[in-house]
Amino acid sequence: MQLLCYTVCMAFFTDNKNDKNIFSVRDGVLYIEGVSALSLAEEYGTPLYVYSKRSIKDRCREIKEDFLDRYPGTEASYAAKAFLTPAIAELIDGEGLMLDVVSGGELFVALAGGFPASKIKFHGNNKTREELEYALRSGVGRIVIDALDEIDLLEEAAKRLGKVQKVLFRITPEVKAGAHDHITTGQRNSKFGIPMDGHIIFPLIEKSLKSENIILSGLHFHLGSQLFEDAPFLEALGKALDLVLAVRDRYGYTMPELNVGGGYGVHYVDGEERKPYSYFVDPIMKKVDEYCASNDMAAPVVGIEPGRSVVGEAGVTLYRIGSVKKIPEGKTFVSVDGGISDNIRHALYDAEYEAVIANKAGDLPSVRAVVCGKLCEEGDRIISDALIAEPERADVLCVFTTGAYCYSMASNYNKMTKPAVVLVDGEASEVLVKRQEYKDYLSTER
Amino acid sequence: MQLLCYTVCMAFFTDNKNDKNIFSVRDGVLYIEGVSALSLAEEYGTPLYVYSKRSIKDRCREIKEDFLDRYPGTEASYAAKAFLTPAIAELIDGEGLMLDVVSGGELFVALAGGFPASKIKFHGNNKTREELEYALRSGVGRIVIDALDEIDLLEEAAKRLGKVQKVLFRITPEVKAGAHDHITTGQRNSKFGIPMDGHIIFPLIEKSLKSENIILSGLHFHLGSQLFEDAPFLEALGKALDLVLAVRDRYGYTMPELNVGGGYGVHYVDGEERKPYSYFVDPIMKKVDEYCASNDMAAPVVGIEPGRSVVGEAGVTLYRIGSVKKIPEGKTFVSVDGGISDNIRHALYDAEYEAVIANKAGDLPSVRAVVCGKLCEEGDRIISDALIAEPERADVLCVFTTGAYCYSMASNYNKMTKPAVVLVDGEASEVLVKRQEYKDYLSTER
Repeated sequence: MQLLCYTVCMAFFTDNKNDKNIFSVRDGVLYIEGVSALSLAEEYGTPLYVYSKRSIKDRCREIKEDFLDRYPGTEASYAAKAFLTPAIAELIDGEGLMLDVVSGGELFVALAGGFPASKIKFHGNNKTREELEYALRSGVGRIVIDALDEIDLLEEAAKRLGKVQKVLFRITPEVKAGAHDHITTGQRNSKFGIPMDGHIIFPLIEKSLKSENIILSGLHFHLGSQLFEDAPFLEALGKALDLVLAVRDRYGYTMPELNVGGGYGVHYVDGEERKPYSYFVDPIMKKVDEYCASNDMAAPVVGIEPGRSVVGEAGVTLYRIGSVKKIPEGKTFVSVDGGISDNIRHALYDAEYEAVIANKAGDLPSVRAVVCGKLCEEGDRIISDALIAEPERADVLCVFTTGAYCYSMASNYNKMTKPAVVLVDGEASEVLVKRQEYKDYLSTER
Repeated sequence: MQLLCYTVCMAFFTDNKNDKNIFSVRDGVLYIEGVSALSLAEEYGTPLYVYSKRSIKDRCREIKEDFLDRYPGTEASYAAKAFLTPAIAELIDGEGLMLDVVSGGELFVALAGGFPASKIKFHGNNKTREELEYALRSGVGRIVIDALDEIDLLEEAAKRLGKVQKVLFRITPEVKAGAHDHITTGQRNSKFGIPMDGHIIFPLIEKSLKSENIILSGLHFHLGSQLFEDAPFLEALGKALDLVLAVRDRYGYTMPELNVGGGYGVHYVDGEERKPYSYFVDPIMKKVDEYCASNDMAAPVVGIEPGRSVVGEAGVTLYRIGSVKKIPEGKTFVSVDGGISDNIRHALYDAEYEAVIANKAGDLPSVRAVVCGKLCEEGDRIISDALIAEPERADVLCVFTTGAYCYSMASNYNKMTKPAVVLVDGEASEVLVKRQEYKDYLSTER
């Protein structure tokens, strides 16, 4: 029996592409680091977001070793929108990464976690006047200029507050990358960024060079999400470097920074295998070096902005299975106690996931099922075609790779309360986010 | 000048399909009932959800006059998932409608608004044991059985708590209705409802008839959302009535209730014109009467469940315009200070909206633009092709028909705070939901 279980477990883990250092099966039960998924579900309730601290640290250390340490004069910022709480800000700071925020709310939470403002970059296609002032007063390291009139707004605010602010210009390099329109951002017809047409970009650069309250630190681009190829990065990089050179030739000023954004893909399902950061950054650094050498230009500080790739695979969601409905000559619907209120990515992006029944993690998956939620909407699905062990009411289902853009996009649709978030560290676990309660609705609803 | 303005205003309102009793233009400014949209934006800030109390009451009264009063022995429940706060529950109760809830959270908020439990129906494809117990303890009028093993769960809980509960069975009539897969719910391969196959439905009905803690009140079906045709209702009704008859013939029990659900469409853009409730209910009632007469069957109490049609057109969202970006030989992007965090319907369902610049409501619309939000995602759009007056920073944009499924689906993505909700009543306005603040994040995030 022991041997059989061992064999079956091995079968599961031979197929399963999730990090075997983080996830394991012991006596048929799924473990996250040293903690049983069942005991987590029992202790904290379901639905439950669970993060592996070791997984987040592993990614941060890979960035440090293969990018920051290997290439002096580089920087990496964690893109907070993927997943941010004060404790995560603190963890990321401890690992030596900088931070991207995209709103006043993210800045607030980062500062609440003690993140040094000077290491924060402030993004956004439509920052409000209040947000710009908040960023200036907080002393954020960089503001990434995105809107066409933002330089005027920022200068006016900086002057009024007596601040001098370093900025990057976000450009649209017009490179197509990635699959889903919702998350492809580097193209011309985008709400993001400044078109590279000379009559648009040069006057803005000129304005920033003349300003007494703005220091032009460099350029930024971002191509999209869930990218697995380096070619779009290299293509966009070439265009950005050409612009750096053009600015030097035109104004005699070499911009000292160049940020190539993020978008590094993670493993959700087969066919999406996370590549090491070195796959992306090695050719990027090579191209920067060669370009600068051949143009006799000082190499800029190159920055990257990983978000999903740092936390995506570190997180899972634990649900309790409720209704199991096998339609005669139809599909099998396995309903869990959450849904699009805690994970809207399938409904929104047709995202797919892998899942395992945590209390049957040693069983061979044999049932194809739609994993859906309990919300009152047909589109309330998590996985359209999951392969799992025989599902029964009260089983605990673990959906992998929910660490990015699940908690951060969670809603109270159907007055569902947001799940708790727990961080596992070895044999220990701690609550990062307390589960909402019904009574919390009354704190705003009169 | 006065005359010109008047002419232009008339031009706007000749084209505009929104309720002219609720929305008007005075001196070039949009009014919601007797209150200027600009003064609302000024007083409460933006983004802001604004509801017209008169519009909600108009819809409720139409339901009362054209359905409840015209056809004695009918009932109408407002589907709370469209938009619910304690104050809305109170308003709906005052208008004489019953209430549908789909979760423990909705039940909690309804009860907090003083809604009588006996007039509440509890829906859901996967109610948890805790929710069933909460519903039983609260004394809800009906529980709508949806999952295949729910009758067992419910009976066990009712027995334990010493309760007798009236139930409806939600059936899947296998009628195709509506456009978007996410919101088409009456088909066979649905997570909702009980297949009408005899070997599935009859044993459940038999079980409920034998139970001492469950009273079988009748059947329920729901077809989908944004429906403009009565044909699917009549087709499904025929199947439901056949089942009522079959149950009578088989068990000698005539189920006293039949609920035909909701899904009545509202006006978002041209081509979607809300039909009077009579368009749907008159032929439904005619068919029920004829069927029952010709089969010598007591006519059931017929129930409907309007949600979107009650509150959808009553609500608008006011935004402040920030960045305006005209891409050379490309699109114009008008960014507002909200986005998919307060209205995810375009991103999720390809929903479209009409909008007007509230401070230029007398101007002829001349600019085609993408109305997008400020969130860090390309899919963060509200309207893909809006026709509005010349947009400028600081203008107030009013997006119509956001009363349903906008606040209720709102998230804190990008750590955006949820907007306030204001109810306008004649010349007065009051806050139904307080705007979230950054510090609220720290109430759950440690």
